[in-house]
Amino acid sequence: MNLRKTLALSALALAAPTMALAQDAPDIQPYIFTTLLFLVGGFLVFWMAAGFAMLEAGLVRSKNVTMQLTKNIALFSLASIMYWLIGFNLMYPGDGWWVSGWMGPWFSTTSLEPVGLAAEDAALDYASVGSDFFFQLMFVAATASIVSGALAERIKLWPFLIFVIILTGVMYPISGSWQWGGGWLSEMGFSDFAGSTIVHSVGGWAALAGAIILGPRLGKYKDGRVNPMPGSNLALATLGTFILWLGWFGFNGGSQLAAGTVGDITDVSRIFANTNMAAASGAVAALILTQVMYKKVDLTMVLNGALAGLVSITAEPLAPTLFGALWIGAIGGVIVVFAVPMLDKMKIDDVVGAIPVHLIAGIWGTIAVVFYNGDASLVTQITGIIAYGVFTFVVSLVVWIVLKGIMGIRVSEEAEINGLDTSELGMEAYPDFSKG
Amino acid sequence: MNLRKTLALSALALAAPTMALAQDAPDIQPYIFTTLLFLVGGFLVFWMAAGFAMLEAGLVRSKNVTMQLTKNIALFSLASIMYWLIGFNLMYPGDGWWVSGWMGPWFSTTSLEPVGLAAEDAALDYASVGSDFFFQLMFVAATASIVSGALAERIKLWPFLIFVIILTGVMYPISGSWQWGGGWLSEMGFSDFAGSTIVHSVGGWAALAGAIILGPRLGKYKDGRVNPMPGSNLALATLGTFILWLGWFGFNGGSQLAAGTVGDITDVSRIFANTNMAAASGAVAALILTQVMYKKVDLTMVLNGALAGLVSITAEPLAPTLFGALWIGAIGGVIVVFAVPMLDKMKIDDVVGAIPVHLIAGIWGTIAVVFYNGDASLVTQITGIIAYGVFTFVVSLVVWIVLKGIMGIRVSEEAEINGLDTSELGMEAYPDFSKG
Amino acid sequence: MNLRKTLALSALALAAPTMALAQDAPDIQPYIFTTLLFLVGGFLVFWMAAGFAMLEAGLVRSKNVTMQLTKNIALFSLASIMYWLIGFNLMYPGDGWWVSGWMGPWFSTTSLEPVGLAAEDAALDYASVGSDFFFQLMFVAATASIVSGALAERIKLWPFLIFVIILTGVMYPISGSWQWGGGWLSEMGFSDFAGSTIVHSVGGWAALAGAIILGPRLGKYKDGRVNPMPGSNLALATLGTFILWLGWFGFNGGSQLAAGTVGDITDVSRIFANTNMAAASGAVAALILTQVMYKKVDLTMVLNGALAGLVSITAEPLAPTLFGALWIGAIGGVIVVFAVPMLDKMKIDDVVGAIPVHLIAGIWGTIAVVFYNGDASLVTQITGIIAYGVFTFVVSLVVWIVLKGIMGIRVSEEAEINGLDTSELGMEAYPDFSKG
Repeated sequence: MNLRKTLALSALALAAPTMALAQDAPDIQPYIFTTLLFLVGGFLVFWMAAGFAMLEAGLVRSKNVTMQLTKNIALFSLASIMYWLIGFNLMYPGDGWWVSGWMGPWFSTTSLEPVGLAAEDAALDYASVGSDFFFQLMFVAATASIVSGALAERIKLWPFLIFVIILTGVMYPISGSWQWGGGWLSEMGFSDFAGSTIVHSVGGWAALAGAIILGPRLGKYKDGRVNPMPGSNLALATLGTFILWLGWFGFNGGSQLAAGTVGDITDVSRIFANTNMAAASGAVAALILTQVMYKKVDLTMVLNGALAGLVSITAEPLAPTLFGALWIGAIGGVIVVFAVPMLDKMKIDDVVGAIPVHLIAGIWGTIAVVFYNGDASLVTQITGIIAYGVFTFVVSLVVWIVLKGIMGIRVSEEAEINGLDTSELGMEAYPDFSKG
Repeated sequence: MNLRKTLALSALALAAPTMALAQDAPDIQPYIFTTLLFLVGGFLVFWMAAGFAMLEAGLVRSKNVTMQLTKNIALFSLASIMYWLIGFNLMYPGDGWWVSGWMGPWFSTTSLEPVGLAAEDAALDYASVGSDFFFQLMFVAATASIVSGALAERIKLWPFLIFVIILTGVMYPISGSWQWGGGWLSEMGFSDFAGSTIVHSVGGWAALAGAIILGPRLGKYKDGRVNPMPGSNLALATLGTFILWLGWFGFNGGSQLAAGTVGDITDVSRIFANTNMAAASGAVAALILTQVMYKKVDLTMVLNGALAGLVSITAEPLAPTLFGALWIGAIGGVIVVFAVPMLDKMKIDDVVGAIPVHLIAGIWGTIAVVFYNGDASLVTQITGIIAYGVFTFVVSLVVWIVLKGIMGIRVSEEAEINGLDTSELGMEAYPDFSKG
Repeated sequence: MNLRKTLALSALALAAPTMALAQDAPDIQPYIFTTLLFLVGGFLVFWMAAGFAMLEAGLVRSKNVTMQLTKNIALFSLASIMYWLIGFNLMYPGDGWWVSGWMGPWFSTTSLEPVGLAAEDAALDYASVGSDFFFQLMFVAATASIVSGALAERIKLWPFLIFVIILTGVMYPISGSWQWGGGWLSEMGFSDFAGSTIVHSVGGWAALAGAIILGPRLGKYKDGRVNPMPGSNLALATLGTFILWLGWFGFNGGSQLAAGTVGDITDVSRIFANTNMAAASGAVAALILTQVMYKKVDLTMVLNGALAGLVSITAEPLAPTLFGALWIGAIGGVIVVFAVPMLDKMKIDDVVGAIPVHLIAGIWGTIAVVFYNGDASLVTQITGIIAYGVFTFVVSLVVWIVLKGIMGIRVSEEAEINGLDTSELGMEAYPDFSKG
């Protein structure tokens, strides 16, 4: 259970006179190491934004690639601004934002420490606020990226970006604060180390609500058949998967939130090894399963298998043994292989498989915590899963419906057939190449 | 003012007895942390070489992609050798290269510390020479990459590479030493934290001189109209932008030049957060502005907007608040949207938008220092901008003219029409795909 | 400033009394720094898996790209599992696996330290087992990636993956233990810092054996002529090269295996600078040589030249001066330019040039150790080269022959002509683009 973040934040009111570790000078090394962990972890998670962009650009058809790229760089940029403007202080309100009143002290832009901070003014047992903000910011952007992939190839740019603004500025921070901000779920003992639920399933729920309101792509489900619409560039999709895999070391490893003791840095190592194992076993599970079921290995399933393995281990990357990481991740890979056709049967059109990977494997990972973490209870885990699901799905549904009513969220049939790149943006991604 | 580097290096010759912090053993942690900062920062800036390569390969037409890739890997390699052969010691001459005479002690290849350096022989208040060299080397390569993009699709390979040799071996190190080598601009109080002027506008001036001498691509400006020549692969261009964004955390963060105290590592955190914010706001500014002006979002403008935001914050990524980074970066994004068509009006053909992004936003960033850094004066900032501009532009102009006279710098019309890949290199980048 | 958060976070000190660096406490900093080195070095070497995937996907024809991507992500995943299941303990047996008996204590899955390891239980003079395992695991995956490229465009998926399982689970760990596991070559004084022989030439020997048994691609050697089969995407190949170059800083730098003293971190810096120099000079050597020999620069040679420079410096990236790294790397680049056509003359079809780059330059690098490392002897170096060559080549040959006999290793002629993507996997990498 990852209560450290919560504990640290809930202890806001206390001053820290106990900090003087040595007679003369305080020990500043843990502060530097943990800040470094956030900076390195943070740039790795930043890199996941490129991973989502490449994965999604590779899995849409060539006529929608420019739009997908535009949405990905725009959503990251907007998330960066919204999380500074509202999100960060809303999510980590210190002494409880529910009681501080609307527009209370938590509703404020984020401020960093002054230049050249003196050691005696620093949170020496944690890390610099700047590094923490930088790290946390990257998580909210990941949440928004998940939505982007599922709704590809038919959503209008601006309604999507408005949804991103609401998701990253308000929705994710509010629900995130329940756990990481020291809120009610954290007090209840809910356990989600790096965000299988808080980040991944939240993105998945928002995507699911959008996919339902938006409807499937034209021609995707026709005469009772599922019409495959293969991605235009599997090299990019594979690159995106490798980028995400790399970024996940920062995502899970940085979530240890400390690196300045033997125990902490060894835990970070354990998390790195487990994270890699879960990705590998998720990929291998999909590799074998698609061979057995379809007599042919399916690369996109293998890629999503690796990602589902990663999502599955994210709720508890520390406690499991390597064997634990192996089977938890492998089940993630299995989930993808079965959930992708299942969604198609329900006529929910998820272009890149974001809902199986992030929502369903995210739920699985959150449940799997109980196998290796003795402090976690199944009831509490399920309570958390339901709480995040109901809140995110319902609010997303409302937002999507309102956006649909006000401005429309779907491009015209003609625009969809011609591709969003020429019709909405007037710019092709690969103008020099003839289309087959 | 960024004198620390100079001081540290000039102290290398001296033993640093003032360093003994404790009675028994010297405190080696700051040395290790700062060396780590250079190594991690350095590999991030190295990664920018890939970013420039992908950005440029994506923004040229498919018939010139192999050439663009060749130029990018070649220029990085040549810069690495030239900076070792001459550049590094020319740029950081210690006790002043103006007075040490031509071919003085500074004109020598770079030597690293011996294997297994003892603590008492180390510059314990700075970092290892090897890490510093590694880090600084990556900056000179970035400068050369800027030139490469602007002159794409019509310049011959070898004259370009000869220019790179002169730029990275001599020109950049000489002008760089004015500030970072402890020269006259540094003494005057010029302020350019990570190189909006010293790196980016220098690259931009060299590119501008080249673009003028070289002339525009055939058919670019015809009958008073600007003929758009869209890039062949916007997925690569977007990937390149994300790579550059990631590398910039090392570019700006590493330029703190210290990581071993609470103040320094907290400053590095602040720089990371500000750098990200400026990129985000530059992208959003271009996003909104192109929507408003053209009724359609322009992805290449958004990408260049992010890059211009990054260049804008590079001269002072530490002092501004996050809000400061936001508006400084946003103005960078605005600059790009207006400067790209302005250059076209002047018939200066800059294939990837390098001059708006690196030169004009670089000037803006250098001026913007005065808003948050109380030690900076507008007059001195403008003096520095002009000094770098005049020196680099004039010397570049001379070099380009001489190269043009000696060997010609432009491929034949036929070669340009057929594409540089087949005509100059005999190797297509995408041979399997029919061209549209 | 957001002091609430800062102050609040500091109260965590209550929970962390172990942080007090008292008079009698052990020095934990070197342990943390070295663990960090393994984690950062490890994720950089992980990134090389993406580099190999992109390099190979770019150098095969478009009809085989999906297969190449599938093989690369599958081999990495299987290597991760096999190295945990058998490899790691087989390679690092502690007290000697030759004497511990078959199925002795070394034949076991890898276990990590417990969560929250206490300082007194840690190997304070080294690093966490988790970080070491994570780092070493990435090396075995690199070995397998080398094989993948050479045998592209005609090998069946599953026989290849079975070979990978044997290579990564058993072969590489056994031969690796001779040197890095403290075995007979290590006792003899063999010197291979980061694995020119142990990793790269081992991959090369396995590839060579496979290429011989498998035979060349249809139509590659016809009527005494070598039929060029150009790669389908040189932008991806260049990206892959840059990724590998970046990853190599982790590969060589992390192999210092220590980062907690002035001497160690300075050595890591030296390794970074030398590694970069060797890559640069390898690229420049191929650049100049192809211009001189063929009157045209050959980008794929330049890319492989950089990689050969990297392989060449890998056996001894620490001892050489920068000038040493320059000429050792340059010879690597020269080797590639001559060895690629030489292999073609011998009708050994190596699709991506893996044998010149990893095997021949790997041998060169292992020999070159004697020029700068006074402890190395030419006889011992050659002994090691031969031992690894004979073992790997012979065992690989046997495995390939057995696989050929049992299940066949080559796709049908028809499948090869149509491309492995449609015939074996039923999934094109670039379905939207017409083929030229």
